[in-house]
Amino acid sequence: MSKSPSALIVAVLLLFTPALFADEGMWTFDNPPLRFWRDKYGFEPTQEWLDHIRLSTVRLNDGTSGGATGCLVGPDGLLLTNQHVGAGQVGKLSQSGRDFVKEGFYARTHAEELRCPDMAATVLVKYENVTELIRQAVKPGATPTAAAEQRRQASLALEKEQGEKSGLHCEVISLYNGGEYWLYYYKRYTDVRLVFVPEEQIAYFGGDYDNFTFPRYSLDITFLRVYENGQPLRPQHFLKWATQDVAESELVFVPGFPGSSARLSTVAQLRYQRDSANPMQIHLLEARLEAVHRYAARGEDQRRQVAYLERLLSNALKRFNGQQEGLRGQGVFKKKMAEEEALRKAVQARPDWQKIFGNPWQEISTAYQPMAANGKRLAYGNLALSRAGTLASLLVRYAEEAPKPDAQRYEEFRDARLQSLRFTLLSAAPVYLEMEEALLAAWFSDAQQVLGAKDPFIVALLNGQTPTAAAKLALGGTQLHKLDFRRELFEGGPEAIAKADDPLLALARRIEPVIRQLRAWNETKVLNVEASAGEHLANARFAVYGKNAYPDANFNLRIAYGTVAGYEEGAVRVPYKTTFFGLFERAFAFGQKQPYGLPQRWLAGQNQLDLKTPLNFVYNADTIGGNSGSPVINRQGEIVGINFDGNMQKLVNRWLYVDEDHNANANGASNGSRAVGVHTAAIVEALQKLYDAGALVKEIKRD
Amino acid sequence: MSKSPSALIVAVLLLFTPALFADEGMWTFDNPPLRFWRDKYGFEPTQEWLDHIRLSTVRLNDGTSGGATGCLVGPDGLLLTNQHVGAGQVGKLSQSGRDFVKEGFYARTHAEELRCPDMAATVLVKYENVTELIRQAVKPGATPTAAAEQRRQASLALEKEQGEKSGLHCEVISLYNGGEYWLYYYKRYTDVRLVFVPEEQIAYFGGDYDNFTFPRYSLDITFLRVYENGQPLRPQHFLKWATQDVAESELVFVPGFPGSSARLSTVAQLRYQRDSANPMQIHLLEARLEAVHRYAARGEDQRRQVAYLERLLSNALKRFNGQQEGLRGQGVFKKKMAEEEALRKAVQARPDWQKIFGNPWQEISTAYQPMAANGKRLAYGNLALSRAGTLASLLVRYAEEAPKPDAQRYEEFRDARLQSLRFTLLSAAPVYLEMEEALLAAWFSDAQQVLGAKDPFIVALLNGQTPTAAAKLALGGTQLHKLDFRRELFEGGPEAIAKADDPLLALARRIEPVIRQLRAWNETKVLNVEASAGEHLANARFAVYGKNAYPDANFNLRIAYGTVAGYEEGAVRVPYKTTFFGLFERAFAFGQKQPYGLPQRWLAGQNQLDLKTPLNFVYNADTIGGNSGSPVINRQGEIVGINFDGNMQKLVNRWLYVDEDHNANANGASNGSRAVGVHTAAIVEALQKLYDAGALVKEIKRD
Repeated sequence: MSKSPSALIVAVLLLFTPALFADEGMWTFDNPPLRFWRDKYGFEPTQEWLDHIRLSTVRLNDGTSGGATGCLVGPDGLLLTNQHVGAGQVGKLSQSGRDFVKEGFYARTHAEELRCPDMAATVLVKYENVTELIRQAVKPGATPTAAAEQRRQASLALEKEQGEKSGLHCEVISLYNGGEYWLYYYKRYTDVRLVFVPEEQIAYFGGDYDNFTFPRYSLDITFLRVYENGQPLRPQHFLKWATQDVAESELVFVPGFPGSSARLSTVAQLRYQRDSANPMQIHLLEARLEAVHRYAARGEDQRRQVAYLERLLSNALKRFNGQQEGLRGQGVFKKKMAEEEALRKAVQARPDWQKIFGNPWQEISTAYQPMAANGKRLAYGNLALSRAGTLASLLVRYAEEAPKPDAQRYEEFRDARLQSLRFTLLSAAPVYLEMEEALLAAWFSDAQQVLGAKDPFIVALLNGQTPTAAAKLALGGTQLHKLDFRRELFEGGPEAIAKADDPLLALARRIEPVIRQLRAWNETKVLNVEASAGEHLANARFAVYGKNAYPDANFNLRIAYGTVAGYEEGAVRVPYKTTFFGLFERAFAFGQKQPYGLPQRWLAGQNQLDLKTPLNFVYNADTIGGNSGSPVINRQGEIVGINFDGNMQKLVNRWLYVDEDHNANANGASNGSRAVGVHTAAIVEALQKLYDAGALVKEIKRD
Repeated sequence: MSKSPSALIVAVLLLFTPALFADEGMWTFDNPPLRFWRDKYGFEPTQEWLDHIRLSTVRLNDGTSGGATGCLVGPDGLLLTNQHVGAGQVGKLSQSGRDFVKEGFYARTHAEELRCPDMAATVLVKYENVTELIRQAVKPGATPTAAAEQRRQASLALEKEQGEKSGLHCEVISLYNGGEYWLYYYKRYTDVRLVFVPEEQIAYFGGDYDNFTFPRYSLDITFLRVYENGQPLRPQHFLKWATQDVAESELVFVPGFPGSSARLSTVAQLRYQRDSANPMQIHLLEARLEAVHRYAARGEDQRRQVAYLERLLSNALKRFNGQQEGLRGQGVFKKKMAEEEALRKAVQARPDWQKIFGNPWQEISTAYQPMAANGKRLAYGNLALSRAGTLASLLVRYAEEAPKPDAQRYEEFRDARLQSLRFTLLSAAPVYLEMEEALLAAWFSDAQQVLGAKDPFIVALLNGQTPTAAAKLALGGTQLHKLDFRRELFEGGPEAIAKADDPLLALARRIEPVIRQLRAWNETKVLNVEASAGEHLANARFAVYGKNAYPDANFNLRIAYGTVAGYEEGAVRVPYKTTFFGLFERAFAFGQKQPYGLPQRWLAGQNQLDLKTPLNFVYNADTIGGNSGSPVINRQGEIVGINFDGNMQKLVNRWLYVDEDHNANANGASNGSRAVGVHTAAIVEALQKLYDAGALVKEIKRD
């Protein structure tokens, strides 16, 4: 692995190294693209600059979402993130009659702050490379499945050992598809409180229509406060508010916790995505959304219960549609095939490499053959749409896993993860049984139609009943919506769970064997092959490109960078920023019809606002879901904005960073792929002029 | 021809009648789609309503453009049109140091009004069907060429006879590709004066970038006044200002003088357009624009001289690109082929029809074979880019045509047209020789490259010199920029012109034989075949559809209609209107960089304006170039806006009206084809609050 390729090969191959020319990459803090920053932007940050950014950036997790980002912005643990990141918590804090999502919320004193029911904030305080350690755990000649298991065991052992030693939350992180392993030490805070959130009308202005588009006019922000031992956290690092507005063409950085990209995907994987996985997901989401809309139509309470889910699903559907649009474009497969071909040729050119890396492209292609059929079974064979259903499946699975030796359990049930499990199971957030039943009945019906009545999952699920009857029976008599009941079961352990006579648990028990069988197939035949072939691919890339490449996103800390810049969308010129003028334009142009209505506060306060204050802005940094709430930072390390979205053109970047030279559009027009942020000037202007929140402005502007 | 097809055939064919379901068609006033209006909108106008609209709508012509529309809006001959319609005249009225295009202009008294150098306004006061008369002029067994000539002679005779009798300007109009002939009686006014024009920055806000797009923020208006016998005209009909803002989903009408559509084009013609004509025009315009930009870069005076031409060319280029985008789309050829197939089958189903109509599709297809080569020669073989060159060619041609018997002359040189010719030749508008030389040199060079050095036109044009030298020689010594010299030649007649020793005339004389040869070929082999086959096509359509169809646009009076409606553009929801908020948004979002700068008056007056006043709005009426300046009218016959543009999605409607069900986009997205107008509320708000033009507002609001 230490051998270097010839200069000529490198020169040729570098043409296909994605990160060399564009503002590409979600880089780890151990390997930021310092050379590119210096060469392209003349920017050379100190280690202190990097540490300061890292320690000010926070991962946020709650029960529902995969994870998001926030940043510390004040000496008393004040944290800024997006409204849509905190909205799940805010919804859970609302009761009938007091809807903070709709009305907004502002705690003028610490005492008024509301504790989020299940929000955790984590900071990456330390990291070390443990690649050799994990590699050594794999016995020579191990099958891919065995090797994966051996790596898993070594990782868990390390996490446990170092976690106990440091008192921190430790995770072994796989980077470059297994090309490197790192041990990340996280400081984790579970007492997070709500300080300020604006009305959703203004945070999510334009709703799903304007989601993934720009120009945009959203104040998508929430202020939270991190507590430790019941007191506001006094962090060593927090971001200062920029004293100057971000300018067009300015270099910016976006640290955060991007969720999942699949940049090392092979052409075969991308084809599967385009031809099977995406069309199926789009159908699935459309059916879910239809069920959600039917439920919301029942009344105002139902609409409120389902509002957050509706937003999540709409968002996901638009995302899949955008991704699919990108994948169907001309440039994407061309770029991907060129990259794959270049790497393949480099490997073929050297017999020693050929021997080490083999033909991972072929292995993946073969593993994907049965996916067209089994993909559907994996997607539909679960209760994930329903919170009660998810809780039931977790309990049933826990009952089966807990008695096993730690190393033989499913990963999420091992000792090191039990705290997370407990957090999820015992969340105080309400379970709406009427909603659960309605959504599950629709889900069962759609699953039956897609998989067929004879599919083992459907047989076990329906147990001879109609979808509606099965859902009614399971939800009608369940006690799982009661926190006390769940606590009793969880603390009673496997025996208590196994004994419990609950119809939803009974349903979860019936489908569990089918789920397990599918999971086993997927892990053995697909995921492990992908992991092993992926490791070969990543190693091959290492051998050829070194660490000029960056690893795929996996909800761990990264730093992206780019330039603030407008673009062209077809014939339309799009500016790099919007202002409050545009917010009112869009509201009045649509006659204030939803989702373009403005909160009363904004209508009444229009004259107080300096309307030319920048509201949102765009930059070409390489972000993805999970970067919601990421601070946008200038060279001085000051916050100039907060990331909250990307445009449609950006969605294909799950698989490929599309720069201006690689058009993703079917019509061959310039791509104009951009991330979207809330401008800090808009935050200050709104807090001061409309929310009477001068105290909050003082806090974020304090040194 | 009087036979009717069977009910079944009609029922099947009506499915392909374009106008039946959509808001389609540029209808003549003798045949408005009253049934559709009644059935779809419950609107049944009286004959008085139609007459009132017709007599309030005015055709505007100046030396440069093909024609546009305006409307009478006051009892003293006040006329409203677009700034871009009047801009040519305003430019000619400007002198160095006083740039009305840039600064705007407002005449507070009649005395301050400025007479346009060569603007004519015409109103259609009467019309009669002369189809039988023209048809009878064609001798049995005449070849297509002979038939065309016989029709032409009959038309000219009729125009002359009726013109003299009525004292009006008479024109024989061919409709439905020769399916009908009408004699139109126009009242023509040549004393048209400038009353008000805003700064071009606000009239053309967003410049070429925002041209053909929406949302849009342009106050594209000019007020003119029509004079008769040195006094303001007291028209019998003028449009009242609407008392209520136009609403979303409201039915509107757009009368005007649409220039040229080619809706009856066959699939073969459309293919030629897509595969040869459009790519060539796009190249030609790009080369012209490049020359214009090079010239503008010489200095401020040069920039001003060329500004209007630059705008015309940019506009044309964007239009061709948009048309081409539409033609390349999926829906267009599908719809066109279905229509053609339906008509063809209907003809084939009846032997009597087959005998009468033959196979016009095949005739046209055959005639188009040599067009791929000759199209270039036709496009490049002229001096049309240059005003001086055009004048030279007109004089040389006049010298050759004038001695012939009237009936044998080119149409534009016959007695009935001599007044128009005189008007063009003796316009007082300045000729900038430096500009003419620069543009012609570039034009010669491009023509040489495209046609090759051995092309007869190039040989005659360059006469052994380089393109630059030929242009320098011709422009360096010419006197044609002098009005007196042109008058002398024109009044001296053919002999004086033939004798004149002017290098530009010499050049025009050299190329004239080549131009004549090409024109003869085009007329005989293409245009006459098109006319004859087109007449068969139109007659076949008549036989099948009756007057449920509408004729192609040809710069004569039509009425279109449609609904005020927003649309979706890809993922972006576009409202039906914009407001002043959006104007300031776009200006500040681009940091007021050109073309997004605002006039000082607007920046200073922002606080005076009610920012939520509607500025522009869109509707799906079937408009095309020539409809610039068309009034947009409500059911009450009041003016609610003034048409000034269409979006990119609309450009393909030269060949096909694309409704929501016939996607023109390559990606299959909804088309959203719309016309764009200035809202009357914006006009009043700006005149009152920013231009101190309350008197003008009073005049337009007077009964």
